[in-house]
Amino acid sequence: MEKPVGVIGAGSFGSTIASLISENKSVLIYSRNQFEIDNINQGKEHKGITFAKNVTATGDLKYLAESCNLIFPVIPAGAFRKVIKQIAPYITPLHIIIHATKGLDIVEADIEDLGNKTFDKDIIRTMSQVITEECSTLRVGCISGPNLSKEINLSYPTAAVIASEFQEVIDQGQIALSSSRFFVFGSHQLLTAELAGAFKNIIAIGSGIIGGKHLGKNMQALLITRGLREIIHIGIALGAEGKAFLGTAGLGDLIATATSETSRNYNFGRRLAEGDTIEQIRASEDEVAEGVRTLKIVKYILTKYNLHAPICELIYEIVFKDLNIDKAISHLMRYPNAPDVDFL
Amino acid sequence: MEKPVGVIGAGSFGSTIASLISENKSVLIYSRNQFEIDNINQGKEHKGITFAKNVTATGDLKYLAESCNLIFPVIPAGAFRKVIKQIAPYITPLHIIIHATKGLDIVEADIEDLGNKTFDKDIIRTMSQVITEECSTLRVGCISGPNLSKEINLSYPTAAVIASEFQEVIDQGQIALSSSRFFVFGSHQLLTAELAGAFKNIIAIGSGIIGGKHLGKNMQALLITRGLREIIHIGIALGAEGKAFLGTAGLGDLIATATSETSRNYNFGRRLAEGDTIEQIRASEDEVAEGVRTLKIVKYILTKYNLHAPICELIYEIVFKDLNIDKAISHLMRYPNAPDVDFL
Repeated sequence: MEKPVGVIGAGSFGSTIASLISENKSVLIYSRNQFEIDNINQGKEHKGITFAKNVTATGDLKYLAESCNLIFPVIPAGAFRKVIKQIAPYITPLHIIIHATKGLDIVEADIEDLGNKTFDKDIIRTMSQVITEECSTLRVGCISGPNLSKEINLSYPTAAVIASEFQEVIDQGQIALSSSRFFVFGSHQLLTAELAGAFKNIIAIGSGIIGGKHLGKNMQALLITRGLREIIHIGIALGAEGKAFLGTAGLGDLIATATSETSRNYNFGRRLAEGDTIEQIRASEDEVAEGVRTLKIVKYILTKYNLHAPICELIYEIVFKDLNIDKAISHLMRYPNAPDVDFL
Repeated sequence: MEKPVGVIGAGSFGSTIASLISENKSVLIYSRNQFEIDNINQGKEHKGITFAKNVTATGDLKYLAESCNLIFPVIPAGAFRKVIKQIAPYITPLHIIIHATKGLDIVEADIEDLGNKTFDKDIIRTMSQVITEECSTLRVGCISGPNLSKEINLSYPTAAVIASEFQEVIDQGQIALSSSRFFVFGSHQLLTAELAGAFKNIIAIGSGIIGGKHLGKNMQALLITRGLREIIHIGIALGAEGKAFLGTAGLGDLIATATSETSRNYNFGRRLAEGDTIEQIRASEDEVAEGVRTLKIVKYILTKYNLHAPICELIYEIVFKDLNIDKAISHLMRYPNAPDVDFL
């Protein structure tokens, strides 16, 4: 019998991925929450999805690893390494792991330390680096693209990119996920896809701030355009390849997340602009806006590598230092005396 | 006394430009419509704008040319050369002309001939090329960027690019237009700014089709991302510089136009998807969606230069050949077996 495909994490996007795969393969989905597991296995609606009969939930990572060769971890970045450590003993070189987490990991440091301590070593890791550090497989990849869960769950068509150094990872991912309404491109630019996916959430927070302040589509387009420039600038400093930022997993994901009012990171920025505090927003959302954490990591990267990224810096000041939003926008309008384009 | 700045054309965007300049300089605005001239000179609202007292309307192009050194033509592409021919006898090498027209000109041919006749010579011109062909000044430029009129008229902040080979053109344009809510970048990539501004309207029509079919933000982001790739591909074939397509006048303008429901080209596509015919749309709009004309010209360019641009081609088939929209989208989803990014 054909092995099922594993999905680790039953949040919104994990559930969406599981639902997409279930059109092609059986799925074993992991949740640490017994209530969720029972719900899914009893065929009840979960995260807006009623799964097909070939989706089974489990709370046992060992069982998942032993049952599946192809595994999609979809875990918030802050918990990613912990969960991967738990499954790592059962992962063999035959496993293929394609993650869908759009954030970054920091090793040997707490996210709260980033602003206060200095680190000699390089402490930033992408999710694929976490997987290869913790597990015995090298066959890793990520999935990214303009993939707002709510739209995919409504069967709207879209496309995604599976990025990996290994063609077999791309091939297996395509076989599991492709359908007439979900086209899967391949790319060998794994690092770029991961960095683009993480950084774009910061621009989405900025776009939400512009939305909350009712500043219009012109400013939103300007923010995305010049935000992309900063993303590429930071990405190149970290070793990524500039052009790949312009593809489906880069620009495509950025535009979808930053222009959609259904995206979590956009909504975080919108509520901030409307006067809510970070604490208020966190208390009312059941899933984290990944960009808030990424913002702290990017601020650390800017300092560490001596990079200049005024939009990211201003968003950081707004989110964490209570910078007045109107002042920030006025600063941004007066700032850009640099030439229009010099970023590739 | 300081000379006023001239604006040729009192449509939506011409009026917006005049209003922006009037914060810094007196303005002489040309209309061929005596009713509009009287309205403006009597201080009545025109295109949603009540002009400041330093804005005067005239129907006399000779008077405008003799009164102004700096002139902004904002004329639909199809009428551009005709109007420039009218003012040309009064233009001297001292004049600076910065146009705001996002379309293309064809010489010695009618737009309806493009699909039927073949032309040995190069018949495509940008607006700045029309100006230098018809007038004695070389000091030309264009203004472009994410500049939806409705938002600028509501005093929302944004930025634009003035592109010219001559720094003095950029400088004079910045002095006339800059304000705390309208930042003006400079660029020396005139051809790229003009082509990006014209081509992006085609993608905006496509985006409107996606909007009219309620296909969501994911598909819209995908269209913009892969549409940009085609725009750059066609632009480079016409001699433009690839990188500049990623700036404020390229990507910035593209995102604003293609994601805003207030843009004319977006609305043309939306209505088409909702079942209206071209004739019905034209009959009910007082200003032309420039992208419909540009689409014919781009189709000609694709054939002439043997270029492949599947998104532009499908939009052409939908608009002019009654291609079923659902079929086109299904084709587009199956089509992209090319690598994700290879366009710079």
